[in-house]
Formats: sequence, structure tokens, C-alpha cells
Amino acid sequence: MAVRGLILSVRLHPQKFSDLEEKICTPDQLRPKPDNSALVFGKYFTDHMLEVSWDSKRGWAKPVISPMHNLQLHPGAKVLHYAIELFEGMKAYRGEDGCLRLFRPDRNMARMLSTAKRSSLPTFDAEEMIKCIKRLIQIDKEWVPYSSTSSLYIRPTFIATDPSLGVASPNEALLYVLLCPVGPYFTSGFKPISLMADPQYVRSWPGGCGAMKMGANYAPTIYIQKQSELLGHQQVLWLYGADHQLTEVGTMNIFLFMLNKNGERELVTPPLDGLILPGVTRLSLLELARDWKEFRVVERTITMAEVIQAHEEKRLLEIFGAGTACVVCPVSSISYQGREYNIPRSEPSLSQRFLKTMSDIHYGRVQHPWAVDI
Amino acid sequence: MAVRGLILSVRLHPQKFSDLEEKICTPDQLRPKPDNSALVFGKYFTDHMLEVSWDSKRGWAKPVISPMHNLQLHPGAKVLHYAIELFEGMKAYRGEDGCLRLFRPDRNMARMLSTAKRSSLPTFDAEEMIKCIKRLIQIDKEWVPYSSTSSLYIRPTFIATDPSLGVASPNEALLYVLLCPVGPYFTSGFKPISLMADPQYVRSWPGGCGAMKMGANYAPTIYIQKQSELLGHQQVLWLYGADHQLTEVGTMNIFLFMLNKNGERELVTPPLDGLILPGVTRLSLLELARDWKEFRVVERTITMAEVIQAHEEKRLLEIFGAGTACVVCPVSSISYQGREYNIPRSEPSLSQRFLKTMSDIHYGRVQHPWAVDI
Repeated sequence: MAVRGLILSVRLHPQKFSDLEEKICTPDQLRPKPDNSALVFGKYFTDHMLEVSWDSKRGWAKPVISPMHNLQLHPGAKVLHYAIELFEGMKAYRGEDGCLRLFRPDRNMARMLSTAKRSSLPTFDAEEMIKCIKRLIQIDKEWVPYSSTSSLYIRPTFIATDPSLGVASPNEALLYVLLCPVGPYFTSGFKPISLMADPQYVRSWPGGCGAMKMGANYAPTIYIQKQSELLGHQQVLWLYGADHQLTEVGTMNIFLFMLNKNGERELVTPPLDGLILPGVTRLSLLELARDWKEFRVVERTITMAEVIQAHEEKRLLEIFGAGTACVVCPVSSISYQGREYNIPRSEPSLSQRFLKTMSDIHYGRVQHPWAVDI
Repeated sequence: MAVRGLILSVRLHPQKFSDLEEKICTPDQLRPKPDNSALVFGKYFTDHMLEVSWDSKRGWAKPVISPMHNLQLHPGAKVLHYAIELFEGMKAYRGEDGCLRLFRPDRNMARMLSTAKRSSLPTFDAEEMIKCIKRLIQIDKEWVPYSSTSSLYIRPTFIATDPSLGVASPNEALLYVLLCPVGPYFTSGFKPISLMADPQYVRSWPGGCGAMKMGANYAPTIYIQKQSELLGHQQVLWLYGADHQLTEVGTMNIFLFMLNKNGERELVTPPLDGLILPGVTRLSLLELARDWKEFRVVERTITMAEVIQAHEEKRLLEIFGAGTACVVCPVSSISYQGREYNIPRSEPSLSQRFLKTMSDIHYGRVQHPWAVDI
């Protein structure tokens, strides 16, 4: 009973927005803001960060906002050895009406909770966390770019910090949130990208963690991404299985807009079968398209053989990636088994329409429940 | 040409033992050493650590040994987001003749180099690194347990430190080495362990990084390990494929000693097919057994169906895990598809014989080229 009582008391005291402690920069600690034209993804950080520490005995400590600073980590911290770490990526936008808005933060927090569980890290109160993040953005609000092509990228990060080399559940952890003003994710802007599709490299697999936003899903991809760049491509199209199923593109979900064999227009994206990340942008595009009711919207497995057949039969209208960093990113070509397949772009372009629709929501040109006031 | 010159100049100046800088603890910084009986794996660290930093412009900095201290990491450091991190595990032993010895450090450094390459981290001069590690152990030599069941665990760690959220090759990194006096890995000592074999959980897969000692291979296993403990088992037996191939056990390689269908004694271990870690203990046991020439030694795929058939036909003599932390660890049972299979133990026990042979080499009871003087 005593043990059960302890567990309950930990659970009953999650981090609370009302406990938030704020240590604000002195004027000399404030840093100059970069020009919007100089915004490289994830290079510039704002003046403040949010931290909430946790340990298995006392549960969550109170959240603290303080000036951006280095972390002091024991060199034996589990995050540095066994990659017990996860993150989220979401954005805040400065509307054309001057209001600051978040895009569907509840979805990102729900995914963060499911990744935390799979990572043996503790769960937390998503609504309280969103309140704390909003407060962080309010404090650093001048860092939200005055631009409708830029935004403030929000990086909640969760790491295991206990200094012990046993491969075991962590007893100490730190959840922190960084903010970065960002321009377009790809330096080429909205220019279409070329993909390398090589089945010898596999990103995720059934029984693994491909649907989780764990750090562990990223490290193995970087060498392959480099191989694709050496071959003149911009991103990797990740395939899976003997039939070369399309799964993800780089760090994005993938969408195909095509005519099916009956000549009907169809938007196809791989299903949430555990192999791919359940993207918030992916979900949003599916919901928009289903709402439009103008073409078929299908979540199903799609193979390279089908893509090639559709390409040859001129049924392929458009392929694009979708994710928080880029929102929508058109694909110009796929290199596969020694051939280069040029991907057409439909006119009017569906990816452009999605981008415009999302952008109108992000920048407050239309009112939409997905855009949440800060 | 300029760029090529730059790359060459970086490569030509790897970290050198002769450049090693030593900052030794003052007497008041030295910490008390734990009792041998209290040694929990990876909980106690020695007084000093070795660090070598790297950046893509200047290459490797000079190695530094200094008092054990926290790392100062930017919260945007790539290791904390994308798990760009790897490690090694090896041991130093205090021989019964009073000499300190390392076990096959060249093998660990070779594996560390191949993991570094796959992780987009820079390579280094393995021999110089071994010299630096030896010097670190010499400085902390009083931490090497005076015991022939304990040892000094050596944890080389390599992390990407650049503060940028782009998913890209790192430009800054830190290689560091920690030392931990350790007792037996499992608190149960040499007592046989029980395994959970559940094909719904998959550790690695073709086209992935299962053969690399990356942090990314460990985080996803911890939740599953916890599931096995909740079901009363000590470790996970990782299966792969529709035919439920045995791959690894916990963080160890797996060995089966059995009679084959012709009644011949056979030591079987899964092959280095990319799914399993190429263990140094695994290699050493194979080399010892091949040298003994007393039974067949086979590296091949083995399935659960074969194990069960051998179990039913009473051809199974022994199953054990092998790794640096535990050396050899016998398996008492496997829980699989609702049944519990008790694993016999042959008399005389092969795992005991391996442990004795390895222990004689580790503690200098016999002279052997694998044991390297420090």
C-alpha cells in the first residue's frame, strides 16, 4: 500500500503551469535576432528555454523558464549511451493580423506521450505542457519572424539523464523545449527535390519503433542521406519489403496524387502500419482532402512497381512530401534501380493548393480550429 | 584542390598519445572506492576520464585526461536529438600476478571505427587511442578491483555535439572514455537466467544497423526488457523473421551446445549477417572452441522450431549468452508461445569451461596473446 501510495502521489503531481518559475534574461543577455533571409533550419535559438526535470522518486519538478544555457550532463547519462531520447517538432506563426498561433499542439503532445511510453520515459500532462510552451513563446515573442514564409520552430526534447550504464529504465530525466526562428527547411525553398530510392537501406520494420519520434530513428539515416547527396539527390525515399513499398521520404511522410486504373483521381499515402511516423501534417492534409470531397483519398500500401506503372501509363499527377519542417515539398524525380523517373506536376498543383491552404491557416488569413492562439 | 588539401591535413593529424595532456586530481578530489561486494554494473566511476574533441575544420584536438566531470552540452547538440552516438565496452583485469591487462582492445577499437563510419562520425587512430586508454587506466589503477570476479569496465563513448537541429552529418564531436569498477553483470551472479522469446518484438532487421554498437540499438529494447521482467524473466531472446530465428539475448550473443541429428556435439551461434553485434567474446569463444577441436563449431541461422525439436529429442545440451559485461551467462529457460522450455545444463558444463578459460586469460593465470599488458 505504501508503494502504491507513492506511485499515486507522483502521478497526481504532474508539472503544472501554475507552478512555472520564470528567470528572464537581463537586457545584456538578450541576443541579436538574425535576418529572416539568414534563417537556416535549427541554427539560431531564442533567448529562453523551458525545462522540467523528473525523477522516479519525486516525480516531476516545477517547470522553469530561464535564459538559454548549456546542459550539465554526467558523461554516463543514459541519453549519451543508449539513446533514451525523443523529440517533437511543431511551429508557431505570426499571423498577418499580428496574432501568434500554434498549429495543432495537442497532436504533437499526444505523439510525444506515446513515444515517451515506448521509450520508458514518464508521461506528463499535455495541456499543462502546452500552457508552459505558450508562455515560453510569449516571452520570446519578438523571435517569431515577421514573415509569412518563416516561423518559429518549437523543439520539445526529452532525455534520460541518470548517470548509470545499466541498460534499464531511466530514473532521472529532463524535458526541455527550445525555440528556433526558421525559414524554409530546404535551402532550395519550395523547389521540387530529387529522391534516391535504394531498397538496400531500410529505415524501419515491423516490430520496431518506426512510428515513434525517437532519436534512435534518425542516427542510422544520416549516412544514407549522405550517400544520396553524393549521388546528386536531395533526400532518401525509404522503401520496405521485397515488394519495395514506399514508406517515408527523408524525414517526411509521402503523398502520391494519381489517376487510378479507373481514371479516377486519387490521393494515396502509406497507412499507419507501424513503419511510418504519424505526421501531424499528414493527418491535416488527409482531413483537408476528405473535407474537399473532390477526389478519392486512400491510405494504403503502395509499391515502386505501382509507381512505375502509373508513371509509364501517365497516370502519375504529382508526388510530394509532407512534414512540419517543410509543410509540403514536391518531388521532381526518383532514382531507382539504375533509372531516373521524372515526376510530373499537375496543373493546378495539388501540393501548391495544400501549401496555400495550410499557410492561410498558419498565418491567420482564415479562421480555423487547428490554429490555436498563443 | 584546396578542399582536398584540407581533408588530407585533417586526416594526417589524428589524436596522438604523445600529445596527451594530463590534469590529475588533487588529493581532495579523489573519491572513496566502493567495496567489491557493492559493485553494481556501471554505477561507480573512477577519478579521471579521457576526452578528445573533434571538429570538421580542425580535426582532432589533443587528448586530455582530467578529473571526472559533467559535460557541458548545448541543448541542441545532435546527440540529444538524433542519437548520433556510439560506444564500446571492454575490460581491464588485475591479474593474480599483480599485472593489469586489457582483453583484445584492438577488436573493440576496430568495431568502434566501423560504427563511427556508419554513424557519420570521424574515424581515428586505434593504436593511439589504446595508448591513451592504457594511460587513463594507469592513472586510476587503484580502481581496478583486487578480485578475480570483478574488473574495470571501460566505456569509450562517441557523441555528436554540434548545436544545430538539421538532420545532417555532425561537424563537432566528442570521444570520451569512462572507467567503472564492476562486479558480475547480473545481480544473480553466474546463476542461469530465464528468457522471454516473443516474435512481436524485433531488435534489428536487414538493411538496418543491428551489427553496430550505436546507442540507437538500445533505447527501443528497454521497454521490451521491462515487459520480460514483468512476466518474471530476466532477459529478452530476440527473434527475427517468419521462422523465428534466434539472434541475440538481451545485450549478448547467443550460443547453443547440442547434439545434431547425427548425434555429433555441435556449438552453434547465429552468423554475422548484419542482424547481430559482432561480439569480441563471441569471436573469442569460437576461436577457443575451434582450437580445442573437440566438437563441431558452426555459425549458422537457427530457428525456434529447431530449438524445440532438439529440446524434445533431448539433444539440447546447453544454451548461454556471451558478452563483455557477463563473459558467459547460462540460460535456464525460454518462454515461447505460451510454453516454458527448461534448458538443461551439460555436465561437464561447456559454459563453465569457457568461463574458466577466459578467466584464466583475463586474470593472467595463463599467458595468452589476447591479454595485453597495460
